[in-house]
Amino acid sequence: MRLGALKLKVQLFCGDEPAMGPGKADLLEAIAREGSISAAGRALGMSYRRTWLLVDGMNRCFSEKLVETTAGGGSARGARVTEPGWTVLAAYRELEAALEQASAGDALARLTGLLRAAPQPPAGDTGL
Amino acid sequence: MRLGALKLKVQLFCGDEPAMGPGKADLLEAIAREGSISAAGRALGMSYRRTWLLVDGMNRCFSEKLVETTAGGGSARGARVTEPGWTVLAAYRELEAALEQASAGDALARLTGLLRAAPQPPAGDTGL
Repeated sequence: MRLGALKLKVQLFCGDEPAMGPGKADLLEAIAREGSISAAGRALGMSYRRTWLLVDGMNRCFSEKLVETTAGGGSARGARVTEPGWTVLAAYRELEAALEQASAGDALARLTGLLRAAPQPPAGDTGL
Repeated sequence: MRLGALKLKVQLFCGDEPAMGPGKADLLEAIAREGSISAAGRALGMSYRRTWLLVDGMNRCFSEKLVETTAGGGSARGARVTEPGWTVLAAYRELEAALEQASAGDALARLTGLLRAAPQPPAGDTGL
């Protein structure tokens, strides 16, 4: 999540496995919009294999599947976000919003107040 | 910053260049502790070149240098965190603490409540 000079990355882990994060949240929204895993992946510029692995990862990390595929061969194959999937997505976006709000304080103002508008060019390896 | 199942990454950018983040904050603390860039890098398990690039990146992104090297050849060469460096480090840690506090709410409870203790094993590529 980019907020001016600030970038916040919010991830949820199940053991060592990333269960939810910015990419997976966007993917849930794309699956809801597109109605299939492959179309959602295409819309986000990801390979089918990568998209499928993200969906499989999410589904294995939560007590219920977040994405359900509908039976049917060929082009009729589809996918939908389940009720627990919507719950997780809404809670994740709510957490992001709470963090966005909490970031807008005095500490961030002090940090950005000392930031240059653009970095100075690299000096080379001979000194600082 | 890892908080149970939650991982928060807080980064500050100067244009496209990362100006401050978890690695750079740890590096500032290590430089203050060790008194030199090379010793700080060793303590964090980084190459001298990578350590130097992180310091140079920070110094180019802020209006004043965060790390200053002291003149002197050979083993006498040292580094210290400047006053603006301490200001930036303190504000970054304060921002992290504010975000940690803001994360501990209802949305996170709903997310973790649906998380498994450990991920289910991968199902293979034949289905979800």
